[in-house]
Amino acid sequence: MLVFTKIQEMRNWVKERRDSGQEIGFVPTMGYLHDGHLSLVAAARQENQGVVMSIFVNPTQFGPQEDYAAYPRDLARDCRLAEEAGVDVVFAPGVEEMYPDYPPLTVVDVKEITKGLCGASRPGHFAGVATVVTKLFNIVQPDRAYFGQKDYQQVQVIKRMVKDLNIPVTIKTVSIKREEDGLAMSSRNTYLSPEERKEALCLSEALKLCQELYEKGVTATSELIEAMSARINQEPNAQIDYVAICDAESLVPVKEIRNRVVVALAVKIGRTRLIDNMVIGGESFVPDHV
Amino acid sequence: MLVFTKIQEMRNWVKERRDSGQEIGFVPTMGYLHDGHLSLVAAARQENQGVVMSIFVNPTQFGPQEDYAAYPRDLARDCRLAEEAGVDVVFAPGVEEMYPDYPPLTVVDVKEITKGLCGASRPGHFAGVATVVTKLFNIVQPDRAYFGQKDYQQVQVIKRMVKDLNIPVTIKTVSIKREEDGLAMSSRNTYLSPEERKEALCLSEALKLCQELYEKGVTATSELIEAMSARINQEPNAQIDYVAICDAESLVPVKEIRNRVVVALAVKIGRTRLIDNMVIGGESFVPDHV
Repeated sequence: MLVFTKIQEMRNWVKERRDSGQEIGFVPTMGYLHDGHLSLVAAARQENQGVVMSIFVNPTQFGPQEDYAAYPRDLARDCRLAEEAGVDVVFAPGVEEMYPDYPPLTVVDVKEITKGLCGASRPGHFAGVATVVTKLFNIVQPDRAYFGQKDYQQVQVIKRMVKDLNIPVTIKTVSIKREEDGLAMSSRNTYLSPEERKEALCLSEALKLCQELYEKGVTATSELIEAMSARINQEPNAQIDYVAICDAESLVPVKEIRNRVVVALAVKIGRTRLIDNMVIGGESFVPDHV
Repeated sequence: MLVFTKIQEMRNWVKERRDSGQEIGFVPTMGYLHDGHLSLVAAARQENQGVVMSIFVNPTQFGPQEDYAAYPRDLARDCRLAEEAGVDVVFAPGVEEMYPDYPPLTVVDVKEITKGLCGASRPGHFAGVATVVTKLFNIVQPDRAYFGQKDYQQVQVIKRMVKDLNIPVTIKTVSIKREEDGLAMSSRNTYLSPEERKEALCLSEALKLCQELYEKGVTATSELIEAMSARINQEPNAQIDYVAICDAESLVPVKEIRNRVVVALAVKIGRTRLIDNMVIGGESFVPDHV
């Protein structure tokens, strides 16, 4: 497996592969890999001859009070896991390489669907994501790019951006990977103390509760949100950022589940902010890769 | 010469050319071609095996009170001129094809350098330009793109955007083309009445005056701006939007000409807004194509 830190090396490799007719799958990450990331690699491996993973903790998507400095990093371990999973190239540029003039003057922003959910408590986050993903797409020029369904709003933002800007890439989604007890995998789980790790289960359990109530016929979202909130609030260190039920594409909150919706949560467990979600209602939702 | 109105046709043509090793030059325009546009084609023809010209009057770069509806259009004539100049493909999509969901949620914005000059009196204009140029670059995927130096601020915005977003294209600039009497060529010159056409000379003459004063040793920009403004105000129907002398890259106004600067004007002659500029000072400025 190759590791590139320079944009030009990355471009040269891709050009050679593409010139010989190969298709490139791309898995953008912030590193500190877990099985969720590796499921993206597996999906990319299935559909492409070349697989590139980027590892870049992007400063422009963190707010000033957020965990940019503390975000876990372990490039050596990541490279081992990436190689085992079948990655051909890890692209791990430094901040200087990605942003020679910092902050960049150019920002890609996606309006409306970035207002609510995580966008409300993380102003500028999705503009940071959209901008760095545009940069990475322009550097790697992949045929397909793979994103985890766990960052549901992020996937919708990227899909919309790709459509609006005619970016020549196909976005593929992969379902959420969970620990055995149900906790959605996240690099940020590493922040949790053993006690917090137990409390963190309230997110997936609130979703399970919501699904049970919905299957029993409850479609009023106020009732479902109340039940989920009550479950989360049982944990002494849990603090709800949002519990929301929104149209699965526009991300506008709905009062009644009639069509496909996303049930989305953000909860702080101590100082660690965790997110989780599920899609229910309407035509059954099938991610590109389960 | 081919004329495409569909994005997919355009993509297919470019892919075929690129797969056979050809390089593509791209001239984005709003049509109503004049010799300024054709000088861009000539430059593109010199350096590339394939030349694409887009003709698209982009609604998102016009303000609500501006001349979107009235902007002159003549596709048949444009195609004739383009073919004679050596264009291989005219890409002339409709608004529906470019913006199936209008307005688009995704906006590419370039901060700071879009605040002053034309950006001050045309809020949102450069975001509209940056966004549509990003879309066109993603559709045509050219090796080189050609812009006229007449829209000086636009060129700086595009260059900065390309750098910040790592867009894989080289931006080439071509010097201003003028009528015999000095008026900078513009599709909007067609709006001018015979009397206004005479008054419109005040822009290029103000620039000439500025150059003369500068060559005599005047470097205080307040003095130069005052002299230019006085020249323009001699015309009864001329109304100054701005007369500015700015750093040639950052576009920040300067008090004294020490390095390379752009002297930039925007003047309304009756209801027609015209712009013109020249670069002086510092190392001599050489556009990519004269």
